[in-house]
Amino acid sequence: MNTFGRSFRCTTFGESHGPALGVVIDGCPPGLLLSAKDIQPLLDRRRPGHGPLASPRAETDQVEILSGIFEGRTTGTPLAMIIWNREARPSDYDALRDIYRPGHADFTYLAKYGTRDHRGGGRSSGRETVARVAAGAVAMRILAEAGISITGSVDEIHGVADPAMQEEEIRRAMAEGDSVGGLITVIAKGCPPGLGDPVFCKLDALIAGALMGIGGVKGIEIGDGFAAARMRGSEHNDQMISTGFLSNHSGGILGGISTGADIVVRIGVKPTPSIRKPQQTVTVDGKETVVRIEGRHDPCIVPRVLPVAEAMLSLVLADALIEQEKYRVFLPMRKKRDFSKGAAHEN
Amino acid sequence: MNTFGRSFRCTTFGESHGPALGVVIDGCPPGLLLSAKDIQPLLDRRRPGHGPLASPRAETDQVEILSGIFEGRTTGTPLAMIIWNREARPSDYDALRDIYRPGHADFTYLAKYGTRDHRGGGRSSGRETVARVAAGAVAMRILAEAGISITGSVDEIHGVADPAMQEEEIRRAMAEGDSVGGLITVIAKGCPPGLGDPVFCKLDALIAGALMGIGGVKGIEIGDGFAAARMRGSEHNDQMISTGFLSNHSGGILGGISTGADIVVRIGVKPTPSIRKPQQTVTVDGKETVVRIEGRHDPCIVPRVLPVAEAMLSLVLADALIEQEKYRVFLPMRKKRDFSKGAAHEN
Amino acid sequence: MNTFGRSFRCTTFGESHGPALGVVIDGCPPGLLLSAKDIQPLLDRRRPGHGPLASPRAETDQVEILSGIFEGRTTGTPLAMIIWNREARPSDYDALRDIYRPGHADFTYLAKYGTRDHRGGGRSSGRETVARVAAGAVAMRILAEAGISITGSVDEIHGVADPAMQEEEIRRAMAEGDSVGGLITVIAKGCPPGLGDPVFCKLDALIAGALMGIGGVKGIEIGDGFAAARMRGSEHNDQMISTGFLSNHSGGILGGISTGADIVVRIGVKPTPSIRKPQQTVTVDGKETVVRIEGRHDPCIVPRVLPVAEAMLSLVLADALIEQEKYRVFLPMRKKRDFSKGAAHEN
Amino acid sequence: MNTFGRSFRCTTFGESHGPALGVVIDGCPPGLLLSAKDIQPLLDRRRPGHGPLASPRAETDQVEILSGIFEGRTTGTPLAMIIWNREARPSDYDALRDIYRPGHADFTYLAKYGTRDHRGGGRSSGRETVARVAAGAVAMRILAEAGISITGSVDEIHGVADPAMQEEEIRRAMAEGDSVGGLITVIAKGCPPGLGDPVFCKLDALIAGALMGIGGVKGIEIGDGFAAARMRGSEHNDQMISTGFLSNHSGGILGGISTGADIVVRIGVKPTPSIRKPQQTVTVDGKETVVRIEGRHDPCIVPRVLPVAEAMLSLVLADALIEQEKYRVFLPMRKKRDFSKGAAHEN
Repeated sequence: MNTFGRSFRCTTFGESHGPALGVVIDGCPPGLLLSAKDIQPLLDRRRPGHGPLASPRAETDQVEILSGIFEGRTTGTPLAMIIWNREARPSDYDALRDIYRPGHADFTYLAKYGTRDHRGGGRSSGRETVARVAAGAVAMRILAEAGISITGSVDEIHGVADPAMQEEEIRRAMAEGDSVGGLITVIAKGCPPGLGDPVFCKLDALIAGALMGIGGVKGIEIGDGFAAARMRGSEHNDQMISTGFLSNHSGGILGGISTGADIVVRIGVKPTPSIRKPQQTVTVDGKETVVRIEGRHDPCIVPRVLPVAEAMLSLVLADALIEQEKYRVFLPMRKKRDFSKGAAHEN
Repeated sequence: MNTFGRSFRCTTFGESHGPALGVVIDGCPPGLLLSAKDIQPLLDRRRPGHGPLASPRAETDQVEILSGIFEGRTTGTPLAMIIWNREARPSDYDALRDIYRPGHADFTYLAKYGTRDHRGGGRSSGRETVARVAAGAVAMRILAEAGISITGSVDEIHGVADPAMQEEEIRRAMAEGDSVGGLITVIAKGCPPGLGDPVFCKLDALIAGALMGIGGVKGIEIGDGFAAARMRGSEHNDQMISTGFLSNHSGGILGGISTGADIVVRIGVKPTPSIRKPQQTVTVDGKETVVRIEGRHDPCIVPRVLPVAEAMLSLVLADALIEQEKYRVFLPMRKKRDFSKGAAHEN
Repeated sequence: MNTFGRSFRCTTFGESHGPALGVVIDGCPPGLLLSAKDIQPLLDRRRPGHGPLASPRAETDQVEILSGIFEGRTTGTPLAMIIWNREARPSDYDALRDIYRPGHADFTYLAKYGTRDHRGGGRSSGRETVARVAAGAVAMRILAEAGISITGSVDEIHGVADPAMQEEEIRRAMAEGDSVGGLITVIAKGCPPGLGDPVFCKLDALIAGALMGIGGVKGIEIGDGFAAARMRGSEHNDQMISTGFLSNHSGGILGGISTGADIVVRIGVKPTPSIRKPQQTVTVDGKETVVRIEGRHDPCIVPRVLPVAEAMLSLVLADALIEQEKYRVFLPMRKKRDFSKGAAHEN
Repeated sequence: MNTFGRSFRCTTFGESHGPALGVVIDGCPPGLLLSAKDIQPLLDRRRPGHGPLASPRAETDQVEILSGIFEGRTTGTPLAMIIWNREARPSDYDALRDIYRPGHADFTYLAKYGTRDHRGGGRSSGRETVARVAAGAVAMRILAEAGISITGSVDEIHGVADPAMQEEEIRRAMAEGDSVGGLITVIAKGCPPGLGDPVFCKLDALIAGALMGIGGVKGIEIGDGFAAARMRGSEHNDQMISTGFLSNHSGGILGGISTGADIVVRIGVKPTPSIRKPQQTVTVDGKETVVRIEGRHDPCIVPRVLPVAEAMLSLVLADALIEQEKYRVFLPMRKKRDFSKGAAHEN
């Protein structure tokens, strides 16, 4: 399934070494001011840097909008965007054609499909996320109109919180032909109360699914997360006074629906599986071998996962925001009821 | 959205103090031997105990199958099951009608819908999970046919790993009018490689969404989870030899697709929000007040979340198993290709 | 797939001779006044009459609401309704257990599922439509709030337009152990312009799919329908003046989106396949035989299809109405633009 | 909604005068031999001719495959295809910018979205169907592997069945600044029994929705269609002998599931709404005016609808074929049952 969302639906396509990657957004509200200039900065942020720690594949990642815009505004019809692969070097992967790279999807894709595009991981490549970031940029434009902003930060690299030390940590891993993971926090500010659906599409469930769907993410927490499991109810409950909540242990979501407080999400990212260190593995016909992954690989993908995580959170919230609009159908009827201003639906 | 799954679709309904709860399963394969006897034991396991630590609402939770079975086997048409509420006592909640209980969905439901059923939390009640467990029992029957089994365990209650000490921990919280949370691990054994879809329906993404959609769950990990963020690639990668993987740091999923190894999932459950201790809160018309939640509440829901977590994992896997069947359409073509036995699609 | 709709989603279940039939409506807007009294009259209308032309199975078809209502209003959570089968007489079908009835789904269900519930057609029975009519009654309540009404009429029975003669036509067919079909027109009045989605969910496409999904319907027309194929553009185009359209050849839909004019739909219903006349057929193990269908069967189902057709049209429009609400997210922005009052979105 | 299908999902995008049109197919089975050569001939067939009766917009409609193919075979990942607009001449539409063309979607798009791309109808243009035909070509490849073929024919143009006379009929309409419609029959041969889902996704319901979703189609019939409404049960029922059905009044579908007989579908297409004859209409700000549509328009689109209708039928059947594969999960269990060879699931 390469479509994400219920009302704001993004369908992505493309492989690491195919002609292009892209996304079709179906359900984007009409009338939104939008151009490639809104999208390109986000794509640029996702691109690898140019220092010694960066993956040397130098894609420019220029987005091209193919449909859905008329005179600078969205029309409500599908918004298609493509990013051409300019720097594909599929021959780099010839040596890996018949080998399962440890920690990669090589074995599982073959198990699933009976075939696989081995060139840079094909569809399983992190390069796939360029389409998500493009879609996320559109979602962020919608969120901005609703007063919602998304920010994120790298909390730790390989257990190290200090940014200067993090660079050193990556350098050391790289020097040893190894790689490191880390932690990221993403926050949505300004989200109105009432987003998310009870039961299976709880807002936290949607967020968890969205962020765990990013390659390399192995853990996710909302608010206090796992720490809540060691707290008492009296510590974890967010008490209320007339001006709002006194704390935000819940991470902005109660019963699967946004409270109006900051939505706080933390994810754990595994170390890049592509390493130069020798590893035991097998070939597709079952022979044991040792593999050293050479080529253009990041020793740490955490900084590049950050804009992807922000994009995915944006997609979830833009979709939930549009979904929630449907309930307005009975707004006049609801207005007659007597709610506190704080709790009332945002009209 | 009260429907879960793509091919094995469960739609649940019902409130804590309405006439009944239930589920309709659409897409259950035909020909499966099934009766209420397959479902009741799971429901019984979810029911509260009868000791001093248990919620005293004494529902018998007898499942009734309304459709989809003929002469002891599923027909492929929708399987509807209901569980009547026999012990509903809505008047218990009269005092809470206009009060937002901290840590509950009272405020957020009203923000979303402009109305709410305050009786025991209505749809946001943990009682809703009885329908999920009934559906999960059917999913487990399918998984059993495919050789997949699901088991789970409570790892910690309020940071305590020892079961005897856990009971003490709960008792102490209850005596103080408080509550505690905990950790649960759920494992699927025997899962074939190849389940799960790349990108947005990665198997880990589906699992994360499914388990985070259980009320009270605030964190989720697959395999090494957050610990992976502090590991190096050389430590985390699961190397392979001809007989399989040498480790299972990935928790049985690579690139969003099952590897054939155990699928290992851990969740963190927050402490029950209903506590007797006084808490600051506001009424629906914005007046500050202090609330003490009396009534029939568990001081710790972790043991009751366990069968729900198992049920949700079962729903994800049964759905993924059926989804994967679709690829067989080109099986003859695929058979001509030369795969290792291990990696080949399970025919 | 037993779920219908995108935002107003109805999942039905139940067989002709099982314990009950029912429907779960997910996505019903909150705050709607609703009780069994809104639904029962529609179910009564669908019930067979008691005269000599009617099917003698005397079900009372009392609807029971299991969830989703609180203090007389919908809550936004799933609305479950069941109708118990009281008059099931499965033994009536013992003789047909191993025989494919011509014109029925016996052969095809077995081809699809490898099993079938032969009792009265199981899930393929017209009795299944009782759940659709219950759901349609809820949809009609929503439409009524928006000023939309649905009416239908029987145009022809076996080519006869005069109601008195129609009864005679049915009587004659019945006397000869035969059955007849007919034509139905369904009209939606008061529908605002703007409903329906371009391309695959055109409003006419949704209506065609919905009505063709009623057992026995073999043809569908919107507006002039097939007659349009013999018209010229200058005859068929609906010209406009400042007060609206000068004609309604399009049947209220242009480019798949409602124009604000009456939505006019016509369907052709085949004769009931269950007839007493001897017919050639085969048994499930391939032996040729002759079958005479005895039992409780209508010689003409057209009058009973009418409320089902109205229900299905209501489901399509209620869903489209709620879907359209989503676009309001950018209403303020759109208001700034300069539209004619007639063409502007109905705010 | 610009996505079609459940398992074989096509998402289309693009406007008449934007940069490109295209489609992303998600759920295409892996291992299928496929190249642009399989798709181009279908696109060429949809292109306007070059005679005096043809629309003079001379697009080459060359398809470009962007993803989902590796070494000549599908990989199971999304297949993206684009067709660039080379001959867009948006300035042709400047005069129509503020005018509602009768019979077109101009008024309704504006009512829905509050904005519209007036250039050649934007997304509502018949040019949108180029993406459907590309997707249909892939579906036909799948159907071919399963032994299913799709053929269609133009039955009538403006009531005229003789092909030579049809051309004359179109010429006469064109000379008078007018246009004509017609009838098309599409047939699927070789379809196995068992395709289609009961109730809302009946195969005939899916086909009706798919074909009514083509611009200009106003009526649809399966098998005998509306004629069935004037038949008796004894005439319409398809009796069976050991070798199969004795007739095919049902059009190859019973109870919404394929019988194995030819699937026969007839559609009625309205006359092209763009005509040179003067028509009354209004401007977007409500002023009455007279419009004459000049430019590159077909006086009869029926021959160009034909390949689109074939494509849509192919999409429905490919999707149903893949959906049906899911039931194989319990094949071994089903094999134990005793069916006639004819009725048994096609293993």
